[in-house]
Amino acid sequence: MRMVDLIEKKRDGHELTTEEINFIIKGYTEGKIPDYQVSAFTMAVVFRGMTERERADFTMAMVESGDQIDLSQIEGIKVDKHSTGGVGDTTTLVLGPLVASVGVPVAKMSGRGLGHTGGTIDKLESVNGFHVEIDNKEFIDLVNKNKIAVIGQSGNLTPADKKLYALRDVTGTVESIPLIASSIMSKKIAAGADAIVLDVKTGAGAFMKTLDDSRELAKAMVRIGNNVGRRTMAVISDMSQPLGYAIGNALEVKEAIDTLKGEGPEDLTELCLTLGSHMVYLAEKAKSLQEARAMLENAIKDGSALEKMKVFLSSQGGDASVVDDPSKLPQAKYIIDLEAKEDGYVSEIVADEIGTAAMLLGAGRATKESEIDLAVGLVLRKKIGDQVKKGEPLVTIYSNFEDVSEVKEKLLQNIKISTTKVEPPILIHEEITE
Amino acid sequence: MRMVDLIEKKRDGHELTTEEINFIIKGYTEGKIPDYQVSAFTMAVVFRGMTERERADFTMAMVESGDQIDLSQIEGIKVDKHSTGGVGDTTTLVLGPLVASVGVPVAKMSGRGLGHTGGTIDKLESVNGFHVEIDNKEFIDLVNKNKIAVIGQSGNLTPADKKLYALRDVTGTVESIPLIASSIMSKKIAAGADAIVLDVKTGAGAFMKTLDDSRELAKAMVRIGNNVGRRTMAVISDMSQPLGYAIGNALEVKEAIDTLKGEGPEDLTELCLTLGSHMVYLAEKAKSLQEARAMLENAIKDGSALEKMKVFLSSQGGDASVVDDPSKLPQAKYIIDLEAKEDGYVSEIVADEIGTAAMLLGAGRATKESEIDLAVGLVLRKKIGDQVKKGEPLVTIYSNFEDVSEVKEKLLQNIKISTTKVEPPILIHEEITE
Repeated sequence: MRMVDLIEKKRDGHELTTEEINFIIKGYTEGKIPDYQVSAFTMAVVFRGMTERERADFTMAMVESGDQIDLSQIEGIKVDKHSTGGVGDTTTLVLGPLVASVGVPVAKMSGRGLGHTGGTIDKLESVNGFHVEIDNKEFIDLVNKNKIAVIGQSGNLTPADKKLYALRDVTGTVESIPLIASSIMSKKIAAGADAIVLDVKTGAGAFMKTLDDSRELAKAMVRIGNNVGRRTMAVISDMSQPLGYAIGNALEVKEAIDTLKGEGPEDLTELCLTLGSHMVYLAEKAKSLQEARAMLENAIKDGSALEKMKVFLSSQGGDASVVDDPSKLPQAKYIIDLEAKEDGYVSEIVADEIGTAAMLLGAGRATKESEIDLAVGLVLRKKIGDQVKKGEPLVTIYSNFEDVSEVKEKLLQNIKISTTKVEPPILIHEEITE
Repeated sequence: MRMVDLIEKKRDGHELTTEEINFIIKGYTEGKIPDYQVSAFTMAVVFRGMTERERADFTMAMVESGDQIDLSQIEGIKVDKHSTGGVGDTTTLVLGPLVASVGVPVAKMSGRGLGHTGGTIDKLESVNGFHVEIDNKEFIDLVNKNKIAVIGQSGNLTPADKKLYALRDVTGTVESIPLIASSIMSKKIAAGADAIVLDVKTGAGAFMKTLDDSRELAKAMVRIGNNVGRRTMAVISDMSQPLGYAIGNALEVKEAIDTLKGEGPEDLTELCLTLGSHMVYLAEKAKSLQEARAMLENAIKDGSALEKMKVFLSSQGGDASVVDDPSKLPQAKYIIDLEAKEDGYVSEIVADEIGTAAMLLGAGRATKESEIDLAVGLVLRKKIGDQVKKGEPLVTIYSNFEDVSEVKEKLLQNIKISTTKVEPPILIHEEITE
């Protein structure tokens, strides 16, 4: 088999066989096929796409390129949730304890990553003492005992995907639905998920800006999952504005605690109940989505979700008293309100620019070496559709430096106020199961 | 400027600026832009094409990537002819002396190359003593004195094209009209041509198999030439069967001499008169194509074309007496006729397979290191449309080994005989001047 022939086959719109796809991924991972052939191939994929069969094969070839996490010692169906990423997305912090509290095993492998705020592990480290340096045995024992644990990423998972993504990033071949879908799905599958709930964000603050693109990506991922024997569904949710109110590490932990108490932002709560219902249903802990939702609502109401958060934090060394007293979380030195300059209705909150404002405060990492300030960030006081009066706070800024004029300016530029009434955006656009 | 942005711009169907194209070619030639970005870019070009302006800029950027031959010391308009390549194409050997004999300066830089037979230099070296190891001054003096000389390729011409072609060859990006056209044109322009006559072959034995593709390539090249100030035209000629009768080095020299005497194959003679007329016209040695053709026909009739061949050969050390006595050319040990197995009409002569049969005899180079046998090759005795009787010779094989059964078998497989009458193919499909 020669790579050049496979490039030409894809270029000319023909379907590659399983053997051909394995040859490409294996050869590339082992360094036998050079970057310049793979980048020409991925560009051909940008134009020609991949069939459903090719996508499934491509995904599994990447899964098999490295280590695969074995979660078979954990009882029950392991359901993983994945978000395509947005601003102020606190769902993971809420969903873990929430679904664990109704018996769904949550065995989360997580990372730190780059972005407007830290990753899930960074956020959890706002809780004094909490750590993810546990070994595999402890991790599995904790999940079996408490139904929830988080471990840092380890092992050589999907090296083909890592190498391919780095290449795509510099060769203009990121924007390809089959390549994006197989990249995400390969990571989830290698991490040991039996079933997968996808939260595909749509709108200005998301990777996919339009509903059509988001739907195409969601369907592509759902089909890959189901074609390779992992029950998979996707929710397409709004990211035209940040989700919830908080954007920052400790601030989001507090928001998650509020939500588990039943006092969280309406949109965050609703999305968590929707995603959570699907997780409970796929884990076969409920016979219908309605039943699943009722179980979750009840877990919030009766305090068992909040109690699960305490158990989770303390099992991994964390000070669980923050749940009852969030003032024990890292606190910023300066708390400054940004006030509205005019009367009207909030018509636009440009999510990624708001995220960038949070980064200016130190809430996220620009490079791997950046230090995160866990205390800082933003709390939105108004969201799209809300009425606002001149002088009312639009955003509260949590900062460890006094002069936040640059942050204020960025926020003002990216929160638009209209004189006419504005409808809030639809939160959940679609639920895709096949 | 970042290469990844230019890849995405092309991928998304936008036109690149002159500066952007120069950045790509210069960066690639200097090794600042890696192969893997350029291969993604060329794959995007395969799908998106290039505008006329981009093609002209791309060509000139490649011309400027290396040395350019300065022919300004040669009097008159230097017209170069280029063929896209076929089997048994003796036109260069005929056209040089033919147009030189009516005053058109022929300053030919030529190579050896790989293929079914050697390149122009190999063929000419069939003539005892002929050599191309002359310096630039002697080359220019010879052209000014005799109107014709041939020199071996030297200098660092179009390094960008060389590097790019090697990359395209292994990344499935050869088949792109703008890339093929700019590659060919850049080499001709760097070699110093003022005007260019292109012989674009079409049919089974050509790189372009269909008339539509050949026309598209011809138009692309003609427009590039005219857009960068080199008067350029193209003839689309048949390569569904080999041109003329001879396929081999000394055999083609003899065929060229026959043609200059007015005794050559009809198709080769006609194509040389057509291409030659355009060369004479572009060199402004005639006011019309009709006048140019009459001059050439006369040069054959009155012996001045043949005389020019003698002067050309002897000026570069060759034994010009071969022109009057071609038996002085290298002779093969065995001359074997391949006989027809049935009565009928020749319906197909698969040109590239016939070329491969000539290679089996040793007429061409498979690798740079191969030794060519100048004496051997094939002479077709029948062409498409000719009637043939069982036992009549179809091909005469000139070999230096006795057992030619493999060659015979290949020839029989690739010369089809039909029981019904067959029309010979059209020789000249189109002449394209804009």
